Amino acid sequence: MQPPDLDVVKRAIGAEIARTVYRYTERDVALYALGIGAPADPLDQNELKFVYELSSIGFQVFPTFPVVFAYEFNRCVPAGEIAGIKFNPMMTVSGEQHLRLLKPLKTAGTVTSTVTVSDIFDKGSGLLMMTDVDSFDENGEQLATARASLFMRGLGGFGGERGPSSRWQAPAGPPDIVHEEETRPNQALLYRLAGDDNPLHADPLLVAKGGYDRPILHGLCTMGFAARAILKRCADNDPSRFDSIGVRFSQPVFPGDTLVTEIWRRGHDDIAFQTKVKERNVVVLSHGLIRLRD
Amino acid sequence: MQPPDLDVVKRAIGAEIARTVYRYTERDVALYALGIGAPADPLDQNELKFVYELSSIGFQVFPTFPVVFAYEFNRCVPAGEIAGIKFNPMMTVSGEQHLRLLKPLKTAGTVTSTVTVSDIFDKGSGLLMMTDVDSFDENGEQLATARASLFMRGLGGFGGERGPSSRWQAPAGPPDIVHEEETRPNQALLYRLAGDDNPLHADPLLVAKGGYDRPILHGLCTMGFAARAILKRCADNDPSRFDSIGVRFSQPVFPGDTLVTEIWRRGHDDIAFQTKVKERNVVVLSHGLIRLRD
Repeated sequence: MQPPDLDVVKRAIGAEIARTVYRYTERDVALYALGIGAPADPLDQNELKFVYELSSIGFQVFPTFPVVFAYEFNRCVPAGEIAGIKFNPMMTVSGEQHLRLLKPLKTAGTVTSTVTVSDIFDKGSGLLMMTDVDSFDENGEQLATARASLFMRGLGGFGGERGPSSRWQAPAGPPDIVHEEETRPNQALLYRLAGDDNPLHADPLLVAKGGYDRPILHGLCTMGFAARAILKRCADNDPSRFDSIGVRFSQPVFPGDTLVTEIWRRGHDDIAFQTKVKERNVVVLSHGLIRLRD
Repeated sequence: MQPPDLDVVKRAIGAEIARTVYRYTERDVALYALGIGAPADPLDQNELKFVYELSSIGFQVFPTFPVVFAYEFNRCVPAGEIAGIKFNPMMTVSGEQHLRLLKPLKTAGTVTSTVTVSDIFDKGSGLLMMTDVDSFDENGEQLATARASLFMRGLGGFGGERGPSSRWQAPAGPPDIVHEEETRPNQALLYRLAGDDNPLHADPLLVAKGGYDRPILHGLCTMGFAARAILKRCADNDPSRFDSIGVRFSQPVFPGDTLVTEIWRRGHDDIAFQTKVKERNVVVLSHGLIRLRD
């Protein structure tokens, strides 16, 4: 696979590449929450409420759920072409993810999203594509805004802008909270039913072509584990406290890895974090920020 | 809750109580297989094929999937009334399950099932209701026939027939194969999305009213684990070898328990088994029989 022509890149920037309609039921809400590991304790009502539609304290949607709203768009990734740019899906991984929740989420509904290529950067070792997803409810009110980047290994050097760079430095001093949780060997096979069915996360034969030993966990699944840790430890599992999250996917996670999320409270509502894989002591989510509401 | 009048029981026997239509997709097939613990090893193509729709060796439906065809009927159980017989859903558990597969299963389809009360027995300590489920594909061809019994604790003594009794005696001699597998603390919360959303398997507050400490695993989920063990160890995970299964649910299983299935080969295609919970050394599935095809 060759890097794209610069002309193709310039035409792609700004293009609205998809308009998706996502209809979800209570079952989809529960499946997403199970996919990101909820509940750690099935007897804890305050976690069970994210997966159990008859919860005595009220069924609630885990607040990072909007990352699945453009699910249909995710299917462009296995197809290997977005806005005229061709890539090898087995060489393509999530770069960063930002999500801001603008309205409380209903436990079932229909969401329309627009997906736009907001920028494309030439990182030398690869091409970084930024996509913006804006999601609206049945009344046209905006529910969430998200920005995701895709890193396409091997497609750099096309002469584009390098874009901003931000080295991650974990906050000084030890974290205020350290939260550890195992993923399961089947975690990606479960998450994919709710969030992203890219074969990269399931198919041992296909991933070998991308240079991986075995299927990797979805970056957004790891992000969900981190968000669960922080909502639980810093906001009493109250989804109405969630404002926004941002992360960079710095290293692959394999299903079965143990995730250790290090959390720094920088103010009442301002949380920095990073997530490591315990078995390999590598940072897998960096640049972690969560903003809470009062 | 009082035992029913004998008249009510007599009217209930033979009644067609439901006609259900179940539309399923590849996602439902995968979710059922994940719910019963597949794959134990996500890198084993021969197990992955039950949960991965793009499997290189061909996506296949795990052959006990028809137990979910009358899913909609299962919703009668939480409602606490079937064919005029009222019961406490938190005091009601599965008794036995038999299933015979008559045709290979497609990975998506629409299945119509009839549910009939075939018999009702007075077991003294409770009422045992037998229901027959016959399932048909879009062309009216029969896919499967199943018989399930529900045991309603505390509703015995209404003067009905006691019915046949069969004490289970494990085959003489040590089992030919012993297969051990863990369930997960979240197993019931996952299985319920595919198979049976009775709150008995999720709700810590409600189950206390039924005298349980915590939610129990679906008997049909335990049966699925046992069927997986036997299909893997005795039939190379080939679903076309599966003919039929029968089990009795003799003791509750809790999510997180380790299941040990003891398997006796009584002939090429004739397998007896029982399943124990390792932590408590109790038999939870007795009367286990699986018939294979050549």
